[in-house]
Amino acid sequence: MTRVYNFSAGPGTIPENVLQQVQAELLDWRGIGYSVMEMSHRSKEFIAIAEEITQDVKKLLQVPDNYAILFMPGGGRGQFAAVPMNLLGGAAEGGYAVTGSWSRLAAQEAERYCKIWRVTDESSNGFTTLTPVNEWKLHSRLPYIHYTENETIHGVEFHDIPAVGDIPLICDMSSNILSKPVDISRFGLLYACAQKNMGPAGITLVIVRKDLLNKALPATPTVLHYKSFAENENMPHTPPTFNWYVLGLVVKWVMAQGGLETMAKLAERKSQKLYQVIDQSKLYVNDVTPLYRSRMNVVFHLRDAQLTDRFVEEAKKVGLANLKGHREVGGIRASIYNAMPEAGVDALVEFMKNFESTV
Amino acid sequence: MTRVYNFSAGPGTIPENVLQQVQAELLDWRGIGYSVMEMSHRSKEFIAIAEEITQDVKKLLQVPDNYAILFMPGGGRGQFAAVPMNLLGGAAEGGYAVTGSWSRLAAQEAERYCKIWRVTDESSNGFTTLTPVNEWKLHSRLPYIHYTENETIHGVEFHDIPAVGDIPLICDMSSNILSKPVDISRFGLLYACAQKNMGPAGITLVIVRKDLLNKALPATPTVLHYKSFAENENMPHTPPTFNWYVLGLVVKWVMAQGGLETMAKLAERKSQKLYQVIDQSKLYVNDVTPLYRSRMNVVFHLRDAQLTDRFVEEAKKVGLANLKGHREVGGIRASIYNAMPEAGVDALVEFMKNFESTV
Repeated sequence: MTRVYNFSAGPGTIPENVLQQVQAELLDWRGIGYSVMEMSHRSKEFIAIAEEITQDVKKLLQVPDNYAILFMPGGGRGQFAAVPMNLLGGAAEGGYAVTGSWSRLAAQEAERYCKIWRVTDESSNGFTTLTPVNEWKLHSRLPYIHYTENETIHGVEFHDIPAVGDIPLICDMSSNILSKPVDISRFGLLYACAQKNMGPAGITLVIVRKDLLNKALPATPTVLHYKSFAENENMPHTPPTFNWYVLGLVVKWVMAQGGLETMAKLAERKSQKLYQVIDQSKLYVNDVTPLYRSRMNVVFHLRDAQLTDRFVEEAKKVGLANLKGHREVGGIRASIYNAMPEAGVDALVEFMKNFESTV
Repeated sequence: MTRVYNFSAGPGTIPENVLQQVQAELLDWRGIGYSVMEMSHRSKEFIAIAEEITQDVKKLLQVPDNYAILFMPGGGRGQFAAVPMNLLGGAAEGGYAVTGSWSRLAAQEAERYCKIWRVTDESSNGFTTLTPVNEWKLHSRLPYIHYTENETIHGVEFHDIPAVGDIPLICDMSSNILSKPVDISRFGLLYACAQKNMGPAGITLVIVRKDLLNKALPATPTVLHYKSFAENENMPHTPPTFNWYVLGLVVKWVMAQGGLETMAKLAERKSQKLYQVIDQSKLYVNDVTPLYRSRMNVVFHLRDAQLTDRFVEEAKKVGLANLKGHREVGGIRASIYNAMPEAGVDALVEFMKNFESTV
């Protein structure tokens, strides 16, 4: 078996020793005689697994006691609906910072439930920069402001939490959760699907301030209803047990690496190595304002666009997989989430230099 | 490693050689250099996996061309909301056959969206029998009638599809799908979460007649919106890719066993062995009308209820796990889905006889 460096934007790379543990335990979890996949979610064994994961997340992210830690189905797209359904509380419009494709989709889904008040909209800038928060159009009647901390398609990332006063701030942290320490108390709610930095697709972490749990529309389905999850230990339905278990192993892996400070340093170092090659190159171009460049998704294009396919193909041949950019923007995208080893980035750096020297 | 016979009601046993294949492919799917868990859902490899599963399901269940085959998140509980949200089409009430805890919960969730018209309600019979369909209270204004073909807690199963005329019939087949041939054309829609007969929790199969796809309430979230799944090859969101892949392997396993006729004979034989021991015993009692006994969940209690815990404990010692009845009804429950080998049932039969002879 030869593992390659997989730069997929998500579902993406999972730490190799997490996969090894999953593999070892697959038919028989710790001598019980069957797989985690085959455990009742109501069994004492699975309940212990689930409780340990909640405690690990609470510790790793330093979640204050006035926040509930939820694990829900439906991914980020599920949360695009869950946020307005649970938090509008009768308000006519929700606040959205539209800074890329994902935040635009979040606003689009919310239109099923309310009007959209765009506190900022970067589409006229091609989603390559961010407007400073002191220029955002806020108004005090907003029940919440939603933003996407890292845009995977455009490679734009907020490096500071926007200060929006008393309005509950909602963050889609799907693509950069666990990549740096975060002050949870600044948020009304944050959510993250697992498939970028926390494990396999199919489960979503939601951290929500408990005083926001009583605003759900009557039509909110149980599987998207925060309070039902908070009051039933995340089991108002049969949860995706196996996905949850793998997420738990990834959380333990992050802790074993040294925690969020370590992941932040690593993310900074990995992404800077790539941006440096780009900025020193005559071939590669990144259009994002340097201050807002993503540490998770390094997006660039080749001045000679006709070389793009060759770049992707030749990279694949040397074990650097899935570097093709998203179809919306084309070019190249290197997604370098927590689980991408620094050696993978070094190999990509070397490939990029070699490729440029031969064309 | 010693695998035990796991009688869990779900998540439940998965065929051992499916788990072995999952284990073998876990770090490297067919030489690609990474796991299915790490594949983009938009990659050509994963799209090929997904398309093959749809074709296999279509073939195995003989799904007519005028039905869409969907794979959705949120489990059965998600469908309890999705059915009324997608199918009411402005009607004020939905029809429900309440024949056990699960169908009762389906009706309860639907109350968020409509009034409930109970075509039958077996709660006064303690959910131990079924009213013949010709005595059901139907009326032609119902947009659909929902029923649960197998009730896992009470051990009651419909062995014939109710004839309800032109009213679209909606079936929760979560706990007996793939256990017998089924005439799909009799249904407006059927759904089944994977974690009983098809794989791990986290993914749900929905088969829906295409002419029913245009009735969704505007407030239906994308992740529960049938038409969005039908029009986007099941990917209006990032699907639970790994769960889907394992489901596909279970479907292939059923095909390799000989298909649904074979599974039906096996289910009949396994369940009859257990009911025979019960009916010939002075210790074990099953309260369900024989005509409606479940082939999937054999529910019984001990005349001397004080022996129940001892039964469960002694069974566990000989490798027969998770026989404790559901907390709502107590007693014993042996869930014997497709993946429970006949040898497991034989071992339970022997244990039951021995246990009775020693008390």
